[in-house]
Amino acid sequence: MKYLVGEASAGAAVYAVQGDQAYNLTALNPAVGNDLMALIKRPDLVNAVTAQLKTAPRVSVASITPALPVAAPGTIICLGLNYTDHIKEGGYEIPEYPALFMRGKNSIMASGAPLVRPTCSTQLDYEAELMLIVGKGGRHIAQDDALSHVFGYTVFNDGSVRDYQRKTHQWTPGKNFDNTGAIGPFVVSPDELPEGAAGLKIESRVGAEILQSSNTGNMIWSVAQTIATISEYTTLEPGDLIAMGTPPGVGHAKKPNPRWLVPGEVIEIEIEGIGICSNTVVDETDL
Amino acid sequence: MKYLVGEASAGAAVYAVQGDQAYNLTALNPAVGNDLMALIKRPDLVNAVTAQLKTAPRVSVASITPALPVAAPGTIICLGLNYTDHIKEGGYEIPEYPALFMRGKNSIMASGAPLVRPTCSTQLDYEAELMLIVGKGGRHIAQDDALSHVFGYTVFNDGSVRDYQRKTHQWTPGKNFDNTGAIGPFVVSPDELPEGAAGLKIESRVGAEILQSSNTGNMIWSVAQTIATISEYTTLEPGDLIAMGTPPGVGHAKKPNPRWLVPGEVIEIEIEGIGICSNTVVDETDL
Repeated sequence: MKYLVGEASAGAAVYAVQGDQAYNLTALNPAVGNDLMALIKRPDLVNAVTAQLKTAPRVSVASITPALPVAAPGTIICLGLNYTDHIKEGGYEIPEYPALFMRGKNSIMASGAPLVRPTCSTQLDYEAELMLIVGKGGRHIAQDDALSHVFGYTVFNDGSVRDYQRKTHQWTPGKNFDNTGAIGPFVVSPDELPEGAAGLKIESRVGAEILQSSNTGNMIWSVAQTIATISEYTTLEPGDLIAMGTPPGVGHAKKPNPRWLVPGEVIEIEIEGIGICSNTVVDETDL
Repeated sequence: MKYLVGEASAGAAVYAVQGDQAYNLTALNPAVGNDLMALIKRPDLVNAVTAQLKTAPRVSVASITPALPVAAPGTIICLGLNYTDHIKEGGYEIPEYPALFMRGKNSIMASGAPLVRPTCSTQLDYEAELMLIVGKGGRHIAQDDALSHVFGYTVFNDGSVRDYQRKTHQWTPGKNFDNTGAIGPFVVSPDELPEGAAGLKIESRVGAEILQSSNTGNMIWSVAQTIATISEYTTLEPGDLIAMGTPPGVGHAKKPNPRWLVPGEVIEIEIEGIGICSNTVVDETDL
């Protein structure tokens, strides 16, 4: 199933997408609610609405303004370095354990929302990433069982303010500017993708300019390994988000000059089989 | 005002503490609720219950089992290096910007709850810290106005699993083991403390063994500077928690051998004028 959370004339709802049509699952059953949390927590509800899908009111996908798939994720954990060539372009060594950091909820927004360049920096960068949404929570999840804990996969732009990311060795500030991390719009259940969402083309673009182009098969830590690694220290919960790191081609490493995002540009992140996360860069002072 | 959130025979409630007596503000007005969020968001409610304080049912402070002051904080931001001597003992350079990291909600628990040593490591360490609770939210908060955004101050033990903290340059895993960060039990409003809670003795102990002993006046970044710095990149919200870093004397830096916490020990963090955060170390396998 491919899901889309968003607003159309009928209000905020969860939709199931088939081709260019979106079926309003919330209209079918109000228990579905306005983001994916109800479906994440209730597999019975997923089954019920799926069985009745064709009776749901439908609209065109294009008529929907996307919202965050999970409005208030409990925890957002990100892998920093997960593609060999990206590690090298950043000047880091290939680590034996993933570099993990966290983003707060004010740093994220939906595909389609403004991606905000702050007043204090011009070093706004893009990062194309696979993101998974935790379905079943747990601690000490075994790698062999880890993929059963995934509700679905979506697209993430791990927007980063590079000078603030490197103010110290801890990346938190540069990864947490308000409205810099774009998520969505589509969430695809694991049954519709290769195991662990590996082997998918992943790309970032501004117009015809291809900025990053790689494949999720190039990730050092797989989705299953990552879930096992993170759940060794923390209890994952339904709706938690995990971002899987970015391939080479980020703006700060472009030669001969860095390639920063500037207001007015539309940055698109596409992952094969999932969709395109698209956001217009807006200057904070123009909000 | 000194607040205490916790459970007694009357159920979960918010108490105002005077000496060894605790006045049940929730019994006085149900709108106060079961943690500090209602009072944080409603200064009118603070004033109303304060005016009626002596009419509230009271119990002894000792009869209350503490709960988290804010049950579900939106964001928990921690300064890593904020006392010069602690920076040196960790082998770091004194930075020109605070090292900031985040903790997730599963990593925190109340004073009195078990502090859990995980199965995968014996390197469990304590860190005595001042913690502030954001009252009024905001972005781009000026340093001169920052202290007006503080609801109150509490005590924090930034429990750290050192080998996991240093698996990579990003400290997230070692700072996010389930039930390692103890908060509370008392929250003191700014009017009862020196400006910015500076000049307070801060100490960590196991029994008669004094592990850290310093003063919040030794912090490099003041509370006001920290709020200004963080709100440059993110919108702070009511109930957000900010931990202010730890003084020298942490276990991993003890000579000739590290001094790790072991199951059965009671680790106490005390800040003058606020209170003692006390937790028994429990092995994860004994939970």
